[in-house]
Amino acid sequence: MLNCLNKIKPRVRELRAYTLTPERATIKINQNENAWDAPENIKRESLRRLHERAWSRYPDFVPVGLHERLAAFSGWKADGIVAGNGSNELIQALLMVTIEPGKRVLICEPTFALYRQVAVVLGGEVVSVPLDANLRYDIAALREKIETVKPDVTIICSPNNPTGCRIDDHDLSVLLEVSTGLVAVDEAYFEFSAGTVAPLLHRFKNLVVFRTFSKAMALAALRVGYLLAAPEMAREIGKAVLPYNLNAFSQTIAEVAVEMYDAELRPLIAQIIAERGRLSAGIEEISGLDAVESEANFMVVRSAFKPRHVFDELLKRDILIRDVSKYPMLENYFRVSIGTPRENDLLLTALREIFA
Amino acid sequence: MLNCLNKIKPRVRELRAYTLTPERATIKINQNENAWDAPENIKRESLRRLHERAWSRYPDFVPVGLHERLAAFSGWKADGIVAGNGSNELIQALLMVTIEPGKRVLICEPTFALYRQVAVVLGGEVVSVPLDANLRYDIAALREKIETVKPDVTIICSPNNPTGCRIDDHDLSVLLEVSTGLVAVDEAYFEFSAGTVAPLLHRFKNLVVFRTFSKAMALAALRVGYLLAAPEMAREIGKAVLPYNLNAFSQTIAEVAVEMYDAELRPLIAQIIAERGRLSAGIEEISGLDAVESEANFMVVRSAFKPRHVFDELLKRDILIRDVSKYPMLENYFRVSIGTPRENDLLLTALREIFA
Repeated sequence: MLNCLNKIKPRVRELRAYTLTPERATIKINQNENAWDAPENIKRESLRRLHERAWSRYPDFVPVGLHERLAAFSGWKADGIVAGNGSNELIQALLMVTIEPGKRVLICEPTFALYRQVAVVLGGEVVSVPLDANLRYDIAALREKIETVKPDVTIICSPNNPTGCRIDDHDLSVLLEVSTGLVAVDEAYFEFSAGTVAPLLHRFKNLVVFRTFSKAMALAALRVGYLLAAPEMAREIGKAVLPYNLNAFSQTIAEVAVEMYDAELRPLIAQIIAERGRLSAGIEEISGLDAVESEANFMVVRSAFKPRHVFDELLKRDILIRDVSKYPMLENYFRVSIGTPRENDLLLTALREIFA
Repeated sequence: MLNCLNKIKPRVRELRAYTLTPERATIKINQNENAWDAPENIKRESLRRLHERAWSRYPDFVPVGLHERLAAFSGWKADGIVAGNGSNELIQALLMVTIEPGKRVLICEPTFALYRQVAVVLGGEVVSVPLDANLRYDIAALREKIETVKPDVTIICSPNNPTGCRIDDHDLSVLLEVSTGLVAVDEAYFEFSAGTVAPLLHRFKNLVVFRTFSKAMALAALRVGYLLAAPEMAREIGKAVLPYNLNAFSQTIAEVAVEMYDAELRPLIAQIIAERGRLSAGIEEISGLDAVESEANFMVVRSAFKPRHVFDELLKRDILIRDVSKYPMLENYFRVSIGTPRENDLLLTALREIFA
């Protein structure tokens, strides 16, 4: 029988599939999800609208209703917005229209693993700049690398997954000015941070901003993301987005979430930010642990014990965290998402036991 | 202000974005949707399961529950199945892991436009073989092209969109035997046809079959598709499928649809097939029209009047069809989807008027 695996690109065959630990626990703080479910009012109104709709009919070709709500929400033009099936899909689309063998992608390390994976599948060369010793963006090093390597695309995750550091407007402006290529900023966690870089879109046509409904918006089950860019850039990126990519359910529920953001979601986000401060302070009091300041709904923690040991001990106590010790620079770190107040209390109690 | 459009691959900039006519009408038979909505029992059970689920939590990393139901439904191994966000996403994944500059994709013409679009974005060379004079697959020509061009991937849409012709098992076996590359069969419409090529998966490891929930399953709003392939091939293609690609809503509703297929969907499909025969016979009675035999839920019709004229006249009567006259070989054809009995009656009445 003919085996056609030789038709698969060698660089794909070498790639390990992105996988996730199969562990499960009652307290699940390993994926930076919103610990509160989507508010009941959002669920109920969404289901009402969905029951009325014909399920046998395709979604809107362009989800204009959602784009318009996102324009008002983000202060950017509706024709410079593309909604997609998770921000991942849009990051992939950006790389599909720009990257092929001979092109270069610049990322920081450690960062979200998907950027490298997609760039490699497309045959691009990946160049990286490490964070500084405090796990913050090293702007001087980034600037130098951009000037010498001239990347076609630079990707900055801000706040960064998994470290929580953020790039500020001034530093980003410097990078946008010296870049001859595109600069993509993944703002998956911006709602938990001091702000957004979106206003820079008015000054820089080489900026592309990515966002998601999976974190602050409490809709990870739906897989909705969007990008903000100059309209002519959005149009080109859109050519690599498949027709009808965003299903009607995701469109409808995302619309409801934006409509109800102020009333239903903003208070949850304020609570998560408050809990982040409380959890961080609690961890700092434990000898052997050092919490890294974060502007997201998670934080990495430096541990005197091996992260795998902490992971295992917490799992015994029905708490699932992320062991990030295989990431560059993070050999001694684990990551926890911010849970509900009760979940954070249980995490602190468990950590005190483990480090007693 | 710096404009970075020069960072977009030239072949992408040259590409026209896939668009759709903005026309709307009460009788919408332009997209091969199921004219009946998803059965109320499927909607109700789906919404019940969805209300109970946490929306803030990611979907399953691998939708095992859906893969297992699809294995039972299709008679293939669960680890040789990948569900995705529409079969389009899976076709794109197959091409992403196989096609780059220097590789060749063989398609038939006319066929579904997406294959060429994705292959071009990825830099592959597209080679095509026309259908024969009766708008059926020209197996001898396909075989010769496969032997001389040695395509890395051959894509056959069966039943073919937009012509409705189907490749039979014997002919496909011949092509699979002479191919040194992969052969993908897009079975988006197989439920309306004489059968499926899926049993050939047991004999040929270079066969990949694509299917969708958007047509017979009456769930176009959801965007769910799946592929069947040798498990080792499914694993490689899966590397180009983004993590959490299939949202929890699509997973859940697709599961319900497979569970209720025999009771709720099979009778609808039988009705659509019966209506196809009735509509085809009715069109044949109209002088100036010639319906092409189809194994799908649509048919192309040869028209003595310009297809655009028929399109416009039908739109005046609140009926939206597809003008396919820009496709190769179809200069004198339009396409209609099979509607409900009442919709088909109204279409026949309108066509009789136009061709009176």
